[in-house]
Amino acid sequence: MTRSISLLGATGSIGDSTLDLIRNDRDHWRVIALTANCSAEKLARLAIEFGAEIAVVGEEGCLPELRQHLSGTGVEAAGGAKALCDAAARGADITVAAIVGCAGLAPTMAAIAQGKTVALANKEALVSAGGVMTRLVDKHGTTLLPVDSEHNAIFQCLQGNDIADVQWITLTASGGPLRTKTYAELESTTPAQAVAHPNWDMGAKISVDSATMMNKGLEFIEAHHLFPVGLDRLRIIVHPQSVIHSMVEYRDGSTLAQLGPSDMRVPIASALAHPARMGTDLKPLDLAAIGELSFFPPDEERFPATKLAREAVHAGGAAPAVLNAANEVAVAAFLAGQVKFTQISAIVARTLENYAPSAPETLDAVLAVDAEARARAAQMLEPV
Amino acid sequence: MTRSISLLGATGSIGDSTLDLIRNDRDHWRVIALTANCSAEKLARLAIEFGAEIAVVGEEGCLPELRQHLSGTGVEAAGGAKALCDAAARGADITVAAIVGCAGLAPTMAAIAQGKTVALANKEALVSAGGVMTRLVDKHGTTLLPVDSEHNAIFQCLQGNDIADVQWITLTASGGPLRTKTYAELESTTPAQAVAHPNWDMGAKISVDSATMMNKGLEFIEAHHLFPVGLDRLRIIVHPQSVIHSMVEYRDGSTLAQLGPSDMRVPIASALAHPARMGTDLKPLDLAAIGELSFFPPDEERFPATKLAREAVHAGGAAPAVLNAANEVAVAAFLAGQVKFTQISAIVARTLENYAPSAPETLDAVLAVDAEARARAAQMLEPV
Repeated sequence: MTRSISLLGATGSIGDSTLDLIRNDRDHWRVIALTANCSAEKLARLAIEFGAEIAVVGEEGCLPELRQHLSGTGVEAAGGAKALCDAAARGADITVAAIVGCAGLAPTMAAIAQGKTVALANKEALVSAGGVMTRLVDKHGTTLLPVDSEHNAIFQCLQGNDIADVQWITLTASGGPLRTKTYAELESTTPAQAVAHPNWDMGAKISVDSATMMNKGLEFIEAHHLFPVGLDRLRIIVHPQSVIHSMVEYRDGSTLAQLGPSDMRVPIASALAHPARMGTDLKPLDLAAIGELSFFPPDEERFPATKLAREAVHAGGAAPAVLNAANEVAVAAFLAGQVKFTQISAIVARTLENYAPSAPETLDAVLAVDAEARARAAQMLEPV
Repeated sequence: MTRSISLLGATGSIGDSTLDLIRNDRDHWRVIALTANCSAEKLARLAIEFGAEIAVVGEEGCLPELRQHLSGTGVEAAGGAKALCDAAARGADITVAAIVGCAGLAPTMAAIAQGKTVALANKEALVSAGGVMTRLVDKHGTTLLPVDSEHNAIFQCLQGNDIADVQWITLTASGGPLRTKTYAELESTTPAQAVAHPNWDMGAKISVDSATMMNKGLEFIEAHHLFPVGLDRLRIIVHPQSVIHSMVEYRDGSTLAQLGPSDMRVPIASALAHPARMGTDLKPLDLAAIGELSFFPPDEERFPATKLAREAVHAGGAAPAVLNAANEVAVAAFLAGQVKFTQISAIVARTLENYAPSAPETLDAVLAVDAEARARAAQMLEPV
């Protein structure tokens, strides 16, 4: 039995991991669409390798290069925002939505509207457009499978159980590379120090989010949309080894946890094969070799981002979208050396104070809130 | 909706925990039969409190006292081995089989033959009569729910999954109170030292089994019968905090674990409410307060019991029944001051070498093997 798959964001790290799994299980998959922002050469190579129907670059300017690489291969080439959405709407059995940032919103929504299965790896989607997106999921009866390792862990811990029996959902956080630093040390943290994540190999933006713990704040908001147990049943615990990816406690006192290596192929494989399992060639978990798992309460004095996220989702409306947009601006400014590490959360907090629009009801409204929040956050950048 | 329940072994610690849960959920339960060995006064009190149809003592000599306590209450009284089986066969929706030792075998089999649900808390049942019992379960389509915390954990980690996708089942072991002792220190261990379990409050026999790690060996054999993944996919890890009760690793690299307090009400509640969940008033798990979970490989030089158990189940036939019987004799002799701590495993090993009957096909054959193995083990007792 083969399933068809589209991969929105095929050339990033989620794309690499996904295609690695499919490469080892080729007989069971038919690739429909592969997309990238502008990595035309890599996208063309993958599209040819996997016999994709179509390859799409988000940047129209990159289309000529893509066309050149695909010339005579039989793989269709397309470019631009609308082409991304058209590709997402080709109705693959499963669409992996892994385009980073707000650029991924429209194609993800287009995939959801097909009423099939969407494996969601775009963090911003649920944070900025949570209500809009979950309503679309409900409307089309789409199966939404989380690919983030924490949310995938929770999803697995809920299998065969009733969400009404959940007492607690506990997101684990590594605490990032600056977990043990004093506030003064945090103030003087350089971008290089902030992106040196102990457990995961990730991009710069998400590495900074991990260092500020805003990553966990965004995941808290996502979890709220994915697992409607109520905000007072969601919590965060710091677990530096990142071996337990998250946990669900039931009302009988049982807690189920999902553990595994820090390798995105695990949650992606879980989503691709759901509700079954597919094989990976990962080494079995060896807790005796790991030796020790440790746990700490979060320190929201030094790392206020999780508090900001919790307050934003409590406030509701557009606050999570504003938080996300302001954070992207602040992180970019930090990486560019324009603001200090500790100013990231401060900029987010001030943007939230300064801008509180009502809940966006459409994708366009989400994008408008996002743009305005970015503009306001940019105004708050101060020289270091 | 109410369910009917019978409790074989109502006055022991499993009985206490089970009735505590039912006491807090009275509207949903109708109690059919409660049994005890000879605690007539306590049994009568519980039968009256829970409005049981019948109370049964296994020892016929205790029946007059039971009759006296139940006189005029409307609760039927009975006594003797056959009465236990008759009570077990009253066809409650769920029967909790918690009679300790071989005395529990026949009533447990009688309950299984009703084709309903049996929550199994009798360790010896599957160890000594594994093949006989699992064939009976299959024949009657009985739902067998494990109540041991480890097996219940595995059962929970398998919910919503296909056992064919299991890569590893890992039983956790506390390592017992003697985990860090040298062999010389083990040799001079007194019964009082051996029964001081760090995490669980248990009877003397099972506490010694925990100290020798034979308890984990017996659980390994049980797991083999309950979860047919093959012996080469079953393993043991030492985890002194006993917070993770066991784990299942799937072929995609995901490991699911069940965690909880060291309180038998958790696995019992899981079995009673299966496939749903019932509430307990247990404190939520607070890993930040626990701080640290540690893991070690088992040391089978100092604690050879798990190796003996693994070899017995590999050998098959009656070997697990012989192992269990010899162990009971050796532990009793240790508790009576007749043999050293380190001789327990030695006596078990020599009995296994000395007596290798073919696989018992009936309950009577199991009991005959058990009796002969006890006799042979008793001959091996040497003065300290």
